[in-house]
Amino acid sequence: MPASRACLLDGEALAARLRREIATAAADLRVRGVTPKLVIVIVGDRADSAAYVARKSADCAETGIAADIVRLPAQTTQARLLDVVAELNRDPAVHGFMVQLPLPAPLDETAVLDAIDPAKDVDGCHPVNLGRLLAGTPDIVPCTPAGVLALLRHHEIAIAGRAVAIIGRGMLVGRPLSMLLSLKGIDATVTLLHSRSRDLAATVHRADIVVSAAGTIGLVDKTMVKPGAAVIGVGISSDADGRTVSDIDDAVAQVAGFVTPRHGSVGALTRAMLLKNLVAIAARAA
Amino acid sequence: MPASRACLLDGEALAARLRREIATAAADLRVRGVTPKLVIVIVGDRADSAAYVARKSADCAETGIAADIVRLPAQTTQARLLDVVAELNRDPAVHGFMVQLPLPAPLDETAVLDAIDPAKDVDGCHPVNLGRLLAGTPDIVPCTPAGVLALLRHHEIAIAGRAVAIIGRGMLVGRPLSMLLSLKGIDATVTLLHSRSRDLAATVHRADIVVSAAGTIGLVDKTMVKPGAAVIGVGISSDADGRTVSDIDDAVAQVAGFVTPRHGSVGALTRAMLLKNLVAIAARAA
Repeated sequence: MPASRACLLDGEALAARLRREIATAAADLRVRGVTPKLVIVIVGDRADSAAYVARKSADCAETGIAADIVRLPAQTTQARLLDVVAELNRDPAVHGFMVQLPLPAPLDETAVLDAIDPAKDVDGCHPVNLGRLLAGTPDIVPCTPAGVLALLRHHEIAIAGRAVAIIGRGMLVGRPLSMLLSLKGIDATVTLLHSRSRDLAATVHRADIVVSAAGTIGLVDKTMVKPGAAVIGVGISSDADGRTVSDIDDAVAQVAGFVTPRHGSVGALTRAMLLKNLVAIAARAA
Repeated sequence: MPASRACLLDGEALAARLRREIATAAADLRVRGVTPKLVIVIVGDRADSAAYVARKSADCAETGIAADIVRLPAQTTQARLLDVVAELNRDPAVHGFMVQLPLPAPLDETAVLDAIDPAKDVDGCHPVNLGRLLAGTPDIVPCTPAGVLALLRHHEIAIAGRAVAIIGRGMLVGRPLSMLLSLKGIDATVTLLHSRSRDLAATVHRADIVVSAAGTIGLVDKTMVKPGAAVIGVGISSDADGRTVSDIDDAVAQVAGFVTPRHGSVGALTRAMLLKNLVAIAARAA
């Protein structure tokens, strides 16, 4: 196997470091009389959702953030769920909350998410928070884009003026990340690529930073990467062994300057940014 | 003077055509018992704002849309202005309204715009409407980006899969236009360029469609344009004679396939899209 030369962009390590900073900030808030509190609402009993919620809950325990899990049966009505959201909006002890997706049919996800008070939207995905990001005046930023930016900054990768190719135009990663990295003061030149793009390979090859959020194994291969570029895999798929695999082919490490690990790296970062948002919201109450 | 070969992207002509369609739609709504009604709130007596409002008012008269102008003195308080907005939000006879910017100091523009009911936001610039555009589920789209898209479509310029270079990352044009043209079903590959971008000229030269919203006279010159490309000037400045001039150098017409006229073309289109939004909102009440 050819030697890898790329520096590893280790999201897990950065997430662990961020959790320590968050723990310090949470302890500081408690001294000032504010116990930062997150509530996660989960409807039904999907195993994957339960696993995601358990990880978030463990992160809260580690960082000294109070976490309540509200478990509702799969048969919960839209009206009942909206009541729960309204109650959380009103409760001053709850600084932020989220409703774990997907919701069981026939619940209306958009209506539920829209009902969350934007000021308590730790996920940063309420239309108002996305709108402020688009308008160039971000408040609460979506977690995965914030995690990607944190990873680039932690490794002191130059962003301003640089060409960034984002592959994938989903609402959780590609689209908000393009709006985040193009903000004044961050100043990337962003190209948003997708399944209908012509010249995807050539565009990626010109980029100083590549972020792939497509969910296609091996989508970014070493022929597409400019030597020295930073390559971040956000999209994940399951390989034959059922392990999660990123969009970035292993051989990319031979040409890239920086690359995320094969089995992904951004999940832990996304959760860390969720808690960072929560602590920032709680600090407004302090 | 060398011969121009580019087809003229005449926004004024398209706007006139759109106003005829809007007049038909408005007449149809009146038959169904709904009189589409727009309200424009203007605070203070800036001559430029008065001129913009007069043009919108004239467009309403031409298209059979009821238009009320609410004129408030420059000394209006924030509380009074928010009361006016709340009243317009409540009035079922008002389908949409806008507050003409800029507001006199010390009024808080953001707070005023945020207070507008997103369902009556004919401008499409409320955070909720921008957020839905970012999320890929647009409802009311900002007027200038919608006008640019209408101009491209009217001239049957291929967009899907094509490279689009947008110069300028303002909240009224560049940023929302990048989110609009990259939507599923429109499918452009958008690069958002700005004052900090390296390789601006090379990126523009690769583009099939160039939209300049920078407000710098002659920013896009003929050496930067790919032969046959469509070049749209949205940004305007004032020339030595006080006339508005777009960012596109005259000589671009020698290489481009399509180009907007020197003295701009998108203003009338922006106003037409405002009325199109208004009629679409009114149709929901029919």
